[in-house]
Formats: sequence, C-alpha cells, structure tokens
Amino acid sequence: MVKLNSNFGKLTSSYLFPQIEKKVSDLKARSPSSEIINLGIGDITKPLPEPIVKAIVDAILELENDVSKARYGPSIGFSFLRKAIAKNDYLDLGIDENDIFISNGAKCDIANIQELFDTDSIVAICDPTYPVYVDSNVIAGRTGFYQDGKYQKIVYLPCEEKNNFFPKIPDVPVDLIYLCSPNNPTGTALPYDELKKWVDYAIQNKAVIIFDGAYEAFINTKNTPHSIYEIEGAKKCAIEIRSFSKKAGFTGLRCSYTVVPHELKVQNTSIRECWVRRCETKFGGVPYPIQMGALATYSDKGKQSIDTIISEYVDQMKTLTSGLKSIGWKFYGGVDAPYVWVKAPSSSWEFFDELLTKAKIISIPGAGFGSYGEGYIRLSAFAPKEHIETALNRLSGIYTCATQ
Amino acid sequence: MVKLNSNFGKLTSSYLFPQIEKKVSDLKARSPSSEIINLGIGDITKPLPEPIVKAIVDAILELENDVSKARYGPSIGFSFLRKAIAKNDYLDLGIDENDIFISNGAKCDIANIQELFDTDSIVAICDPTYPVYVDSNVIAGRTGFYQDGKYQKIVYLPCEEKNNFFPKIPDVPVDLIYLCSPNNPTGTALPYDELKKWVDYAIQNKAVIIFDGAYEAFINTKNTPHSIYEIEGAKKCAIEIRSFSKKAGFTGLRCSYTVVPHELKVQNTSIRECWVRRCETKFGGVPYPIQMGALATYSDKGKQSIDTIISEYVDQMKTLTSGLKSIGWKFYGGVDAPYVWVKAPSSSWEFFDELLTKAKIISIPGAGFGSYGEGYIRLSAFAPKEHIETALNRLSGIYTCATQ
Repeated sequence: MVKLNSNFGKLTSSYLFPQIEKKVSDLKARSPSSEIINLGIGDITKPLPEPIVKAIVDAILELENDVSKARYGPSIGFSFLRKAIAKNDYLDLGIDENDIFISNGAKCDIANIQELFDTDSIVAICDPTYPVYVDSNVIAGRTGFYQDGKYQKIVYLPCEEKNNFFPKIPDVPVDLIYLCSPNNPTGTALPYDELKKWVDYAIQNKAVIIFDGAYEAFINTKNTPHSIYEIEGAKKCAIEIRSFSKKAGFTGLRCSYTVVPHELKVQNTSIRECWVRRCETKFGGVPYPIQMGALATYSDKGKQSIDTIISEYVDQMKTLTSGLKSIGWKFYGGVDAPYVWVKAPSSSWEFFDELLTKAKIISIPGAGFGSYGEGYIRLSAFAPKEHIETALNRLSGIYTCATQ
Repeated sequence: MVKLNSNFGKLTSSYLFPQIEKKVSDLKARSPSSEIINLGIGDITKPLPEPIVKAIVDAILELENDVSKARYGPSIGFSFLRKAIAKNDYLDLGIDENDIFISNGAKCDIANIQELFDTDSIVAICDPTYPVYVDSNVIAGRTGFYQDGKYQKIVYLPCEEKNNFFPKIPDVPVDLIYLCSPNNPTGTALPYDELKKWVDYAIQNKAVIIFDGAYEAFINTKNTPHSIYEIEGAKKCAIEIRSFSKKAGFTGLRCSYTVVPHELKVQNTSIRECWVRRCETKFGGVPYPIQMGALATYSDKGKQSIDTIISEYVDQMKTLTSGLKSIGWKFYGGVDAPYVWVKAPSSSWEFFDELLTKAKIISIPGAGFGSYGEGYIRLSAFAPKEHIETALNRLSGIYTCATQ
C-alpha cells in the first residue's frame, strides 16, 4: 500500500491571499462603485521592454527555420547567458560562468536547493519571511509539526524594529540559513557588516547560506552589498539566487539564476557538482527564446530599459514614502527595496481591514509573513504613480498625523 | 555542521552519453572525412511549425503592451490550455481541466511527482528504462545503494523478448509503479489487456501508477490505449504525463502536462490537492507565450502541422524498419513509437562499436538503459529520411542477411 509524504499534512493552509481576496470581493459586493487601489501586490506593473520583446521574437522565429535551436538545451542554461551574467554581475567577485545556473524562476530554485542537503539539517529562517523557505523545508521533512504559530524544528530569526529588522546570530547551532536582502517583506537591506557576521558564522560552523537576492536591482544605498560574494569567504559557504522578474518584467516569463560557486564544498563534496546532477535529472532548462530575452537585458538598449523601469519604480516608492511621512506614519524599508513595512496602530488584520474599508486600499497584513510580522502591513511600489497619489490623498484625508 | 543529502552519492555516474561522444570524437579524429550518421538521438529533427511560431510571437508582442499578460501566471497552468487539453485529449475519459497541470517538460514532472509519496515506498521500474525514474528515486532516498548492477530496494520489472517486452506483475508488493507506453527505449506499446493487469493490480494493492505517455502521438496500432484512463478504474490509481516535445517541436520550449485525477486518493487524501500545493510552493508555471504556443497545437492549422510532423516521422520509421528487415535484422518496436530495439549479435557496446566503425552509424547501446537492455541497441526515427537511407545502404553493403 502506497503512503503519502506525510509532510504535506504539516503545511499550514495558505489563507493569506484567499482571505485578502475574499475581503476585497466582499467590499466590492457591498459598494460596487468603490475604486479600490492595490498597494499590496508584489508583481510588476510595467510591461516587457521593447528590446527584450524583440530579442525573444527573433529567437522564436529562428526556431521555425533552425531545428538545432528548437532541440533540448543544456539543463544548466546556455553558455551565452551564463557568460553575460558572470561578466555583468560578478566581474570582480571571482564567479565565472561555470558557477552560474539558469533557472525558471527564483521561487523554484529557492524551493529546490534544500534538496542538496540532509533532511536532518537545522534550518534558520527570518521571521517575517517569504513563505517558500518554510514550506519547501516542511515538504522535505525538516521542520516537524506546526504548533503555537511555529514549526517545532525551525530556528526562527526574529527581525524586529529594535534590531533594524536585521536577524541576529542564533544561540543554537544551525546548518542552513536563509537570508533575503533586500528583504521581502520588510523592505530593508543588510549592510556589509551585518552580512559579514553571517558569512563568518557559516564558515566557522560549516553552515550554508541560501542568499535570496531577487530584489538586488532595487539597491540604492551606497556600500550596501549587491551580492553576498562581496564578503570575503562567502564563496565557500553561500549560494546566491537572483531574478530577472521584477527588474526586467519577467515574472510571467520565468527566468532567474543561481550561483553555486565551485569553492563551496560540504563534507569534501562539491555542491556545484550535486546541483549539476540535480538539474540534469529533474530539470530541462529554460526555453531558448526566454534565455535570449534575458541576454538582451545586458545589451546597451536592454540596460537602458531596465534603468528606466527601476527608476520609475524608485520614483513610485519615493512618492509613497514621502506621502506616508507627511501623514506621520512610522515605516521601514522603501529605500533599497520596492516594499515598505508600515507599523500598524492595531493588529495586522485590523489595520488591513481599516485601510480597506476606510480608504479602499489593499495592503498585506504582516502576520501573513510570520509571527514577528504581526503589528505591520506591507505596502509596495508596484502600482502606477497616479494610483499611489490617489491612495495618499485618501490616507491624508483620513489620518493626517492622527493615528500614531 | 551541514551535511549533504547522502543519496546524491548513490547515483551511478552517467557515462552513457559522454562515452558515446568520446567514441564518436575518437573516430572523427582518426578519419576526419567520415560522414557519421546519428540514429541514436532522441530529439526532434523538424523545426517548430509555423502556426505555433505565430501564436508564440503574437503572445510575446502582447507582453509589450499589456502588463497583465506579463505577470505571474497560475502555477498549475492557464485555464485556456487546461481546457483545450481536456477537450481534445480526454473528452470521453472523465478527465476535466481541474485534473490537468501544465508543466515545463515531462522529465521535470516525472522526476518531481515521487515527492508526493512516502520515502519508504517500494518502487517498481521496468528494465530497460528511461533513467529519470530511477535517478529521481535515488535522490529521494528510496533505492538504497547500487550493487551488482542494481539498486537494492528497486523492484525491477524485466522487459524481455520472451514476454514481448511487457513487464510482468512482480511477486513482491510494490507501491509506486512507473510504466512508459509507447516505451522508451524498446519502442513497444502496451496493449489494453497488459495495461489492465497493472490497473487491476494497483487498485487491489493500493499502489499508484506513474504512466509516462510522452510518445502517445506516435501510436498507430488500433486499440492500443492512448491514455491509461481508457482502462476502467485508472482514475483511482494513476497519474499520466504527456508532452508537446516530440509531436510539436517543443523539446527546447519545455511544455508538458500531467493528469492527476480528483478521484485519486491515498490514505483518504486527494493527491491532486497535494500536487496543487507542491506546484504553488515549488513551481511558477510555464511562460504565457509557451502556453499559447501549446494551445495553437489544438487549432485546425496546428493539428494539420502536427499530423504532418508525425506522418513524416512515421514515414522515416517505416523506411528504417523495412530496411532493417531487408538485411534480416531482428528488432522490436518501431510501430507505435519513434524507436526500434535491435537485437545485437554481440554485447550492446560491441555492436555499438561495430556499427560506428564499420558503418559510421551512431546508435545507443541498450545496456545504458539497464541490465536487461544488454544485447540490444536503440535506433531512432529522429533523423532526416536521406540520412536513414544512406545508413541503410551502408548496412546492407556490410551485413546483408549475414549477421543473424
């Protein structure tokens, strides 16, 4: 008799987005004329830039005439793209094309990378957090059961106001450490010294860091590390994951890359070699036209398009944060990330309800990202500027230095 | 201290294709003027048809103007494609769009689907076999070590000449059964009665069948089941995986689909619900333009293109099999699949070497697919007709009813 992977039963039901959707649709039913503004979304609001569209179309047209381009590609990604990434993103960091793997989205590799490690590994995860770090480890059997708002075996790293939302080194040993900078959901980025603490810890304790750099392109602060490999020794202890999603309009096109340096060894075994084998066994690569589109992000025209996209998102974020300041709200992030982490005067869900009903604004309740997200909401810059301005007008009409 | 997933160390090194490549490049070095013909390949030889190219290009152009199309799509696939598959491929079989999941290649889902089941499940796999069934279970820890040409815990199902290459029900209980029909590498397809034995076994023993139907479009024999769901009860015990790869030129574009019927329950839990959760946690969907291309395979023009492609491959296969017959070779398959399984007069590798050096033809040694593949080679119809004809001319010049 076949049995289930019993770990699926340990997953907590994901009520966050369905619950938000239900509350929004209830409001629409009550007052159909409401113009609801979505400041909760974590998805792009700008379409795919023309130079990237052109590169993908050209690549598709090649497939009609040249069967060699339509065949199986390398599971780890085409050399042309891996080379371009090495040259543009890691030139002085000692990462070469052989350390770079093209994948179908940061989420997938973030979820799959844990497979390289023992199921008994102790996992350290920030709280609040992007849920995939947790859920992929639940399915793999590393977490134990969910009790009193926590998985028994996860070592949670509280990210709190009092420590600038930077996770502290835990006082129990951990094996696998998930770090996300710039951070989703708090919108903060780890400075050099904070990141160095973790690299030093990982080297001393033979731990591995999974560094989620999906929002790297949004870093504005000088000296904030763009890559974990800016820290000495990181190539011996860290895997870095980045994405074309937000910066280049690829959320639906699915293209990301994962860096597994050849220096990274566990029990004298090359983690890179294991990842190659994993890719060849369980993955078939990203479509050639999509990789050609990703390559175009590194062309002169492509770079210009991305600069424009990022500067528009940054401009939207500045509009949002200066507006929030003017009504006297307390918030964090929003400088090196497309998210702001707003302190709620009540519980996450109460404040969510208040914003939705009073101002017709959708936010994300922080409690949905973990217990230390309670008391916050996440707002995002992924909304047209005029929507952000309208939202701020509504908020200033309602609040104006009153709530906090 | 972090530890490796020790199961990676149990994988056998994949020498098959590197070894073939080395032998071919050695030959090229020795006699550079050799015109080598590749009859070993399992990849498309016809480019992407025009109606599909057009659909993908149109979809990419949409992304430039409509950001809603560029955003995250559903991890389980767009409804438009799932509906088209249900209507075109499963109309009378009781499978609806909610049972269908769009994936980035049959290999990926074949490798990932085992994750739904307990790591102690006993796995039954045909011998010879497509290696991904084995390797994905090795990584998951279900197989034990490799000793004397076998993994300790896998129940191998020998597919031999004496039983028409049909696997027999094993005399020990098994939980997860991998079946591939039409079969890679033997080129044979399971008739209704053979498939029914397995469905009956699975229902009686509460086992689950993973049915790999990647070559379904090549079935020519009347009454050979195209889907396992043609067998009564299969919806309660089987998952079916199909692909756009070979029939529509998608090997590099990565699009396939997996059917997990809502009737399929294990320990009273819906396997479909677990798969939904797995897709949402660890997968981000197939790019919208690729799904639009897959949709176009079901349009009138798309269907015509696929009929043309398949009939050309079938024609190539007929050329190959009638040529092999005329030189008196013993072989199997080649009717309902793009592969023939040729009996070797010597060992797999010896016969491979002989064909390569004497006739400059690349084949695949059967031993590379498992111990019961010893004594065979695999030839494929994935070669231009004129190449097949030249190969046959060479063979008839060398062999002509002599070897067997």
